[in-house]
Amino acid sequence: MPIFIISYLVALLWFTSYAFAADKLPSWNDGPAKAAIVEFVKNVTGEGGPDYVPPPDRIAVFDNDGTLWSEQPMYVQLAFALDRVKALAPQHPEWKDKQPFKAVLENDPAGLAAAGERGLVELIMATHAGMSTEEFERIASDWVDKARHPRTGQPYTQMVFQPMLELLEYLRVNGFKTFIVSGGGTEFVRPWAQRVYGIPPEQIVGSTIKLKYEVTDGRPRLTRLPAINFIDDKAGKPVGIHYQIGRRPIAAFGNSDGDFEMLEWVTSGSGPRLGVLVHHDDAEREVAYDRKSHFGRLDRGLDEGPKRGWVIVSIQSHWKCVLRHACGLPVPSK
Amino acid sequence: MPIFIISYLVALLWFTSYAFAADKLPSWNDGPAKAAIVEFVKNVTGEGGPDYVPPPDRIAVFDNDGTLWSEQPMYVQLAFALDRVKALAPQHPEWKDKQPFKAVLENDPAGLAAAGERGLVELIMATHAGMSTEEFERIASDWVDKARHPRTGQPYTQMVFQPMLELLEYLRVNGFKTFIVSGGGTEFVRPWAQRVYGIPPEQIVGSTIKLKYEVTDGRPRLTRLPAINFIDDKAGKPVGIHYQIGRRPIAAFGNSDGDFEMLEWVTSGSGPRLGVLVHHDDAEREVAYDRKSHFGRLDRGLDEGPKRGWVIVSIQSHWKCVLRHACGLPVPSK
Repeated sequence: MPIFIISYLVALLWFTSYAFAADKLPSWNDGPAKAAIVEFVKNVTGEGGPDYVPPPDRIAVFDNDGTLWSEQPMYVQLAFALDRVKALAPQHPEWKDKQPFKAVLENDPAGLAAAGERGLVELIMATHAGMSTEEFERIASDWVDKARHPRTGQPYTQMVFQPMLELLEYLRVNGFKTFIVSGGGTEFVRPWAQRVYGIPPEQIVGSTIKLKYEVTDGRPRLTRLPAINFIDDKAGKPVGIHYQIGRRPIAAFGNSDGDFEMLEWVTSGSGPRLGVLVHHDDAEREVAYDRKSHFGRLDRGLDEGPKRGWVIVSIQSHWKCVLRHACGLPVPSK
Repeated sequence: MPIFIISYLVALLWFTSYAFAADKLPSWNDGPAKAAIVEFVKNVTGEGGPDYVPPPDRIAVFDNDGTLWSEQPMYVQLAFALDRVKALAPQHPEWKDKQPFKAVLENDPAGLAAAGERGLVELIMATHAGMSTEEFERIASDWVDKARHPRTGQPYTQMVFQPMLELLEYLRVNGFKTFIVSGGGTEFVRPWAQRVYGIPPEQIVGSTIKLKYEVTDGRPRLTRLPAINFIDDKAGKPVGIHYQIGRRPIAAFGNSDGDFEMLEWVTSGSGPRLGVLVHHDDAEREVAYDRKSHFGRLDRGLDEGPKRGWVIVSIQSHWKCVLRHACGLPVPSK
């Protein structure tokens, strides 16, 4: 075959694969954020190139709340806990007069806020412990199926960010293994993460409570105890990553200062690294919040991120559409 | 094509794939243990069959010490700890007069035994903590490369069981994801498990110590603290599996009562299940030990295992060869 035909075919192949790759992010506007991501992926997958990373080391970690799905007006898992308090109230008549339960039952946000972090932990323990891991999985799974977002009336699994779904799939097509690294509970996310994000249970890292192995009448179960085992947030995220993944990821995606240490840990490794923060600046299509938000505060990351070479994704400027239910696009297949 | 030719081709294909599968366990004697394993794999991979299990749920867990490599005359990680005490002794002159260090430095097994479990923990903390995760990985990795087994003079990575290497690969070829679930330290196993067992870091579940995320001069590190985080042994194994894998495996392989709860947990799930215990009954080719052994005691499992349908592998009867270095077979690729 004449050499010019070969060159032509190679160029065609290159163009086709490039076009295919770009096509994988249809909800991203062309611009610096998309370009930085595509460039990074091109570099680490370019065999023989200086930045080539073999597939087993292509580990990408994603925060969940505010990065993959909406965390407004409150963390979804908190909405779950509040609903569970209401569902369990008939079995706990004492809750009518006891904070923070009273505040939940009376829909009293001020009373709930007054209970502080300790009150929150009490709510989580009362609603997340005392059953087997299998029972909890069923409860969480049922709730996620039936609950609706207070503002949009959509299932929470429709409150995921379409551009991030595309990004997960784009990375996987390029040989990445995608993990969730969430401050929320591992077991709250696992039951539906495969279906919604294409991420299997063993690739979910999150906060955990203590478990006890018990055998009753020859049937073993893991009982969820009302005690924190691990908080996978802030400086806990690199620790959780190390325990469960055991190698430093090369790409990290977050949206709040709770993800700062994770991005710092990931981007300070040697070789090509990608750190991305999603900035919620779109009041029209989602919610605009950052430095002063109660949920998902982003302050230090906005200041230091750009100096560290992290990509700041402006939802307003960089995303063609935001929430899955509003995008009218087919969800990428697994 | 005439129908009989198609039938013939189908039969040929079936036979070829069957022969290929059987071939994958060349170091296993034909007999009940091999037959039970092959039958289980045939059932869970038989599409359309009543016991079919889709690939994502084909999770198999393996104990390490005594199941994948030799744990005699002592756990390899203990040999590592003792060597580290000797290597670090010049920086710790006080160890000369302090137990359990004194016993180690004077090669005094009785003194070491007298220090008991507390002494052991002290040795582990003194040798496994106080450095970054990266430094520890280097130290463990170097040691595994250079250390030699006291009886055979072989590298420890040659003291692995050839039939188990074949089994790991056989399961992977059949769509299984293989995990190690070790009572030993996660980070002691990770540096070499890919090379020796074909198992990546994120598929190693083990005991862990506390970690602290620290940033010095802009460089983050994870520092290993002298405090136990999680003991992945006995009733801890199902807990460790749940935290890290998040679904119940369908096959479990162990060799001691430290694996009892893991096998119990795995084999009491619904659908097809496989529990296997390796029984070290071959004094000639390895070491014969069970009910009274200090390392890897197997007592309850020998009594109850068969009643629970667990397969007991007799090394003497079921394995053609035992230790990798003595088998003279090529190690399965990947």
